[in-house]
Amino acid sequence: MSKTIRVTVWNEFRHEKKDEDVKSIYPEGIHMTIANHLSKEGFEVGTATLDEPDHGLTDEVLNHTDVLIWWGHLAHHEVQDQIVEKVQQRVLDGMGLIVLHSAHYSKIFRKLMGTTCSLKWREAGENERLWVVQPGHPITEGIGEYIDIEKEEMYGEFFDIPQPDELIFVSWFKGGEVFRSGCTYTRGRGKIFYFRPGHETYPTYHHPQILKVIANAARWAAPSRGPVPRYANVQPLEKLR
Amino acid sequence: MSKTIRVTVWNEFRHEKKDEDVKSIYPEGIHMTIANHLSKEGFEVGTATLDEPDHGLTDEVLNHTDVLIWWGHLAHHEVQDQIVEKVQQRVLDGMGLIVLHSAHYSKIFRKLMGTTCSLKWREAGENERLWVVQPGHPITEGIGEYIDIEKEEMYGEFFDIPQPDELIFVSWFKGGEVFRSGCTYTRGRGKIFYFRPGHETYPTYHHPQILKVIANAARWAAPSRGPVPRYANVQPLEKLR
Amino acid sequence: MSKTIRVTVWNEFRHEKKDEDVKSIYPEGIHMTIANHLSKEGFEVGTATLDEPDHGLTDEVLNHTDVLIWWGHLAHHEVQDQIVEKVQQRVLDGMGLIVLHSAHYSKIFRKLMGTTCSLKWREAGENERLWVVQPGHPITEGIGEYIDIEKEEMYGEFFDIPQPDELIFVSWFKGGEVFRSGCTYTRGRGKIFYFRPGHETYPTYHHPQILKVIANAARWAAPSRGPVPRYANVQPLEKLR
Amino acid sequence: MSKTIRVTVWNEFRHEKKDEDVKSIYPEGIHMTIANHLSKEGFEVGTATLDEPDHGLTDEVLNHTDVLIWWGHLAHHEVQDQIVEKVQQRVLDGMGLIVLHSAHYSKIFRKLMGTTCSLKWREAGENERLWVVQPGHPITEGIGEYIDIEKEEMYGEFFDIPQPDELIFVSWFKGGEVFRSGCTYTRGRGKIFYFRPGHETYPTYHHPQILKVIANAARWAAPSRGPVPRYANVQPLEKLR
Repeated sequence: MSKTIRVTVWNEFRHEKKDEDVKSIYPEGIHMTIANHLSKEGFEVGTATLDEPDHGLTDEVLNHTDVLIWWGHLAHHEVQDQIVEKVQQRVLDGMGLIVLHSAHYSKIFRKLMGTTCSLKWREAGENERLWVVQPGHPITEGIGEYIDIEKEEMYGEFFDIPQPDELIFVSWFKGGEVFRSGCTYTRGRGKIFYFRPGHETYPTYHHPQILKVIANAARWAAPSRGPVPRYANVQPLEKLR
Repeated sequence: MSKTIRVTVWNEFRHEKKDEDVKSIYPEGIHMTIANHLSKEGFEVGTATLDEPDHGLTDEVLNHTDVLIWWGHLAHHEVQDQIVEKVQQRVLDGMGLIVLHSAHYSKIFRKLMGTTCSLKWREAGENERLWVVQPGHPITEGIGEYIDIEKEEMYGEFFDIPQPDELIFVSWFKGGEVFRSGCTYTRGRGKIFYFRPGHETYPTYHHPQILKVIANAARWAAPSRGPVPRYANVQPLEKLR
Repeated sequence: MSKTIRVTVWNEFRHEKKDEDVKSIYPEGIHMTIANHLSKEGFEVGTATLDEPDHGLTDEVLNHTDVLIWWGHLAHHEVQDQIVEKVQQRVLDGMGLIVLHSAHYSKIFRKLMGTTCSLKWREAGENERLWVVQPGHPITEGIGEYIDIEKEEMYGEFFDIPQPDELIFVSWFKGGEVFRSGCTYTRGRGKIFYFRPGHETYPTYHHPQILKVIANAARWAAPSRGPVPRYANVQPLEKLR
Repeated sequence: MSKTIRVTVWNEFRHEKKDEDVKSIYPEGIHMTIANHLSKEGFEVGTATLDEPDHGLTDEVLNHTDVLIWWGHLAHHEVQDQIVEKVQQRVLDGMGLIVLHSAHYSKIFRKLMGTTCSLKWREAGENERLWVVQPGHPITEGIGEYIDIEKEEMYGEFFDIPQPDELIFVSWFKGGEVFRSGCTYTRGRGKIFYFRPGHETYPTYHHPQILKVIANAARWAAPSRGPVPRYANVQPLEKLR
């Protein structure tokens, strides 16, 4: 219970290097903003980015990560397939995964979902309200009835995902759309949370309620140490009585 | 497959008698507007209303109903508990149930859900968009990506229902709210569909897409003739091999 | 996170008084066996039984209970409806509820499920195996691939419950039946876990793995302190931007 | 409603050519046994096998298939990736898919699930009972409380699949295991049904109840003609009122 949860925050980290507006919001990168908050919340936090060797996701790193957070946008295709497969295997083995915003279209999320994960979008800096539709869920701890974001990119339905195990948030956008913004899944022994907000041109990851949801989700997604399944040709249970 | 589906449309039928505006929209009552459409669609249709003896829901009627449609608002408390119990039993035995709009607060829906079924509301004649979030579902056959209703009463989350088996529609309201507007459940052998639109002061049940959803739902909710479970003190399966 | 979880173990406590065999297994009652284990696990534990005033479930007790555990069998009908309604309201407000074995037929479980909660049964002291089908779930922490119980009463499908939010255990019985033995639900803000084993004539609640599941479930079901929903006639969100 | 459903039965068709025992049970192949039954049931039926060009799954064939049935075992790896991708796309576009027995490990099923789809197994010709746990579902129409198969290969939990949208059957095996034997999923607009029985050395696909389930599933999985989602950069809904 009280064991420290080890989080790795993975970020594509390209926008922040080449776009002055984004850099001004996230001078050290989106990953550092999230990592700094999680450190304060008592997690053991590391970071990894696309342009590091193995994208920063060596076996050493992955094997010592309880929960992986993923943000990507421009360069999903540059992520090596063999790394994606390792991450998938770690999730099936119990590592938690939090998929943020445009990472709906990342290789790892699409591989785990089995669908295209496509959606509608519009970049118009419009008001988003994330309504809680599962108020007893640990991911909503300390959150109000809705989270108000002044300006965000719009994502609209149909969002081509499997029906979530639990639907936690539904977004309202001023322009007329709705979106399933907070979705949980279990794949193998691993827990997955997709969380919509976080376009790079808005200061969304400085929003206290958004940071709180990410921290809640990291606690919820930490491995549970249940049984390790055996896949094998087995004999009848010996001691049937 | 080709057997005609027998639908009974139940309506409280009070607003239409005492409110001129409502009467002008539904001169014969909400039930007749829905029943007339379903007749044209090939269903065998009857109606029943609150002020009839047994609310029109005699054993004879219930036992010959495949799908019951329910609209109520002002007088939920006037529905007799013994009739509610009969309807519940029929649902558990396989009868389909379609619960419309303010019937979210009917005795029968609350009894089948086990929750308060409470929500937020606002009567301000505002624009509603029902977005399809499960486009492969038979209830959405022939429907576009969303249904646009010019003016409706608003219902907002949190809607205190069990997580639906399938979430089909999510509504957007101009004033800033969202709502899980189309929800399916199975209880016993019976299929249930809650469908939000239909405030009595708007011509919602004349909207072709809304009528199409109701007809689709009636086809989907018809009984499936699967096994009739036996609840009993049983002997071991004799022929274990 | 680190706040002590307050559990109340409710027991009908009739079998243990009048049946010598049951008394020899649970001299202080089933509730004390479970309560003693949970105390060792760090919970703050109280008990309540049918024949106490208000069945031991005064407002004072209920309002200071995070998770209520419920065992009943012979005397479900003796539980007062007004107490059942208070318990239901507390669950909707966030109190966890763990429903054990024959309490599938308790008033409180049936009220929260909306179905008959009926099943097949056979008292033949036969071997039960509870297989884990959700190995990443916190309720399975520290459990093997299955739990083996030498002798138990059989419960068989069809079990007339709503499809669980999460199915955690499925039982195998030597005589030829299966059963959905570990089922989670959310109702309102409250988490519910139904757990099948525990017939009074077998020492099931002395089984270390069964006790572990109950302790895991009590941690999982503790309230999450998410938003308190407001059900009301509301104005449009003032600060839409 | 009354439109004829076009089914394509795909079979690896290797066992039947090289193993005399299998050939004696399925002289024309497993696919022909299933196809003949579906023809009698009023479906328009074609077949396709691994060793045909494009595995018999040309664009022409796929585009005129409403429901694809898939049986494979020895040679999953010989199925070309590009064909698998086409089948996946067709499922997301609405084609139904019925996955039989050892095809749990086919490329197409694993791709759509996002998990390993691994399990336990034992070939010991033991008694299987498939219990219905969702008796109101159309897939169980005309089926009894359980289906009894005298001899089958055992499959045991943990079965590494996403939690099914609906769990229809749970199997009991004499040797002590259980298995989630009938599982539905929606992916994109397509409906998927996994159905466990059918090891090639047993006459399972001559069993009338097994054939009935497959026919029921083919009706259930046929496309629903709901909305075709648009994934695009969209403008605000023009006619917001």
